[in-house]
Amino acid sequence: MIKPRKVVEELDPYVPGRSIDEIASEYGVELDKIIKLGSNENPMGPSPQAVKAIVENLNLINQYPESDLQGLVSEIAEYSGVSPENIIAGGDGADEILDVLGKTFMDEGDEFIVPLPSYMYYEFTLKIHGGVPVYARWDIEKNLLDVDSVLEAITPRTKFIFLCTPNNPTGGLIAKEDIERILEATEAIVVVDEAYFEFSEVNNVDLLKDHPNLFILRTFSKVMGLAGMRIGYGIASPDIIEYMYRVKPVFSITKLSQIAARATLNDEEYIRESTKLSIASREYLYQEISKFKTLRVFPSKSNYMLVDVHETGMKAKDLTTELMKRGVIVRDCTSFKGLDEYWIRVSVGTMEEDERFIGILKEVVE
Amino acid sequence: MIKPRKVVEELDPYVPGRSIDEIASEYGVELDKIIKLGSNENPMGPSPQAVKAIVENLNLINQYPESDLQGLVSEIAEYSGVSPENIIAGGDGADEILDVLGKTFMDEGDEFIVPLPSYMYYEFTLKIHGGVPVYARWDIEKNLLDVDSVLEAITPRTKFIFLCTPNNPTGGLIAKEDIERILEATEAIVVVDEAYFEFSEVNNVDLLKDHPNLFILRTFSKVMGLAGMRIGYGIASPDIIEYMYRVKPVFSITKLSQIAARATLNDEEYIRESTKLSIASREYLYQEISKFKTLRVFPSKSNYMLVDVHETGMKAKDLTTELMKRGVIVRDCTSFKGLDEYWIRVSVGTMEEDERFIGILKEVVE
Repeated sequence: MIKPRKVVEELDPYVPGRSIDEIASEYGVELDKIIKLGSNENPMGPSPQAVKAIVENLNLINQYPESDLQGLVSEIAEYSGVSPENIIAGGDGADEILDVLGKTFMDEGDEFIVPLPSYMYYEFTLKIHGGVPVYARWDIEKNLLDVDSVLEAITPRTKFIFLCTPNNPTGGLIAKEDIERILEATEAIVVVDEAYFEFSEVNNVDLLKDHPNLFILRTFSKVMGLAGMRIGYGIASPDIIEYMYRVKPVFSITKLSQIAARATLNDEEYIRESTKLSIASREYLYQEISKFKTLRVFPSKSNYMLVDVHETGMKAKDLTTELMKRGVIVRDCTSFKGLDEYWIRVSVGTMEEDERFIGILKEVVE
Repeated sequence: MIKPRKVVEELDPYVPGRSIDEIASEYGVELDKIIKLGSNENPMGPSPQAVKAIVENLNLINQYPESDLQGLVSEIAEYSGVSPENIIAGGDGADEILDVLGKTFMDEGDEFIVPLPSYMYYEFTLKIHGGVPVYARWDIEKNLLDVDSVLEAITPRTKFIFLCTPNNPTGGLIAKEDIERILEATEAIVVVDEAYFEFSEVNNVDLLKDHPNLFILRTFSKVMGLAGMRIGYGIASPDIIEYMYRVKPVFSITKLSQIAARATLNDEEYIRESTKLSIASREYLYQEISKFKTLRVFPSKSNYMLVDVHETGMKAKDLTTELMKRGVIVRDCTSFKGLDEYWIRVSVGTMEEDERFIGILKEVVE
């Protein structure tokens, strides 16, 4: 009898956002009529420069990617305002970087702290490496991190503390002073997840100078418009980066992904316009959703917002199903620990998608 | 002080094949003059159908890939002659499948058996999961697996046995009866690496019926011509597959990789022609290299062949450097455990590349 490791037997599956193809075939909606506001993607589509670069390199896909990522790493370093020795780039978005953090530092029985609700993939990935989650608290009403709950959760076995800012799915920011307090209270690696930092127009790279235990996690899946190409990166002290490179898979960023990432980094106008559009779309959606009497929407510094649907009397599962029947995908947050079955997360779309979404939301909720 | 896990401190780095860009800049050779016979890729280039499918889907790369891989999995199952429940598909070529095997089954201190020389990535990946390598022996002179050396290496802690057929880098096949003997001698998972099976025109899928501990590992990086797109798969009993899906990363196959893989599977003519060309090229190269008095080339059932260069008096490192200066990349096998510093591996090229390579080899060796 072949049996898996004990931890695998007990693992909760990760529940991802749904794709357009899945929804189209499940609900019989035409593919190009679907509005996807469920996965915090860039509604502008990819950078035209990225598309162009891919087309120019298609004849090379029979060859292995570069294992030496120096070109990509240098350009990420420049974008981030650090040195190349502070950067690790990985495949599978930020998820591989999380996995490599686990592989590099997590011993069986080590703890990691996650304030709830937050991105569920931290827990999914680190449990596989024998990590034990310890939960702290995000204050949803104030949309702020409960810093004391994090400080109180620290033990001698704490290996990582995850601080997502802006936080997914709540949209709130963590104050730099609070991050500093936590960095100074521990020798654990404090993973500041800045997947969405561009939309908040602040970042925490300046803390790197005085805090060798800071690890900033980022992705090309959001403002960079390359969720489908799976590229992520981390920013940290050269020691941490060097240890991680020892275990990182050698070829996990595809050839076309590297090319697309570099072309996007060099397309400054695309990044600027994407940020501007997403922020404008967020403000519009926030205003419009605020007008619904039975919905409570939380102000967000990201490209999505959390909506409390308790007052509609519908569970998130039913509400999102009704929306999907009408061609709209938003995120049912039931699988996020720390939230009950009455929360959804809405990503920003183009202005036109937003307007159509609000119209459809009115059919379902009012 | 941030310290990695003990196993990470002791890890040997994996030494990958060199890319064209690296060699071009290091040796000042023009990019399009370089002949890459170092990484066992498909010299025909990618399937035109794969390229076409990518071009048609470029506007979608801002969206996450499907997490439900049912379409790809069904087509792989059909190609392999099994059911979809026997298949797991993963990103990063076969390397992610290896990693997922480790995550699913390997406990700290478990052993895995590798006959040397063989593909070094098994060891690189599984050591990270706390696995302890136990070496068996590939008989290079006969180019056959020393089956007894494998059977003798089995202990109660053996979790995996790796059998690469055709074996990388030696090119020899493992007889089906030998695989069966090993399957029946253990409850460990026997990983039969068929990355190159198309070139040998035999496979071991029929053993699945009677052997729940068989795991067949495959890739789209070789005859499928998609090394740059990073797709691999495994074939095994539904139990093994289901356990592995619990830990597999959700989005690790890029959107374009899925699309390219499916288009290639449906391009039967491309697969047939690629196989034919590689076999013809292999036979030609074998004949030509056999004519060198100081080289000893081993018959191969794959798309590469092992060459013993002792008699040239040059180390593989120096010989490959001389070749690189002249624009040819072959694999220096020094980093393969079980081989000394006097072995190279030559991948098949197009007939034209083969001829140019033989000419250049004459400049260096004779």
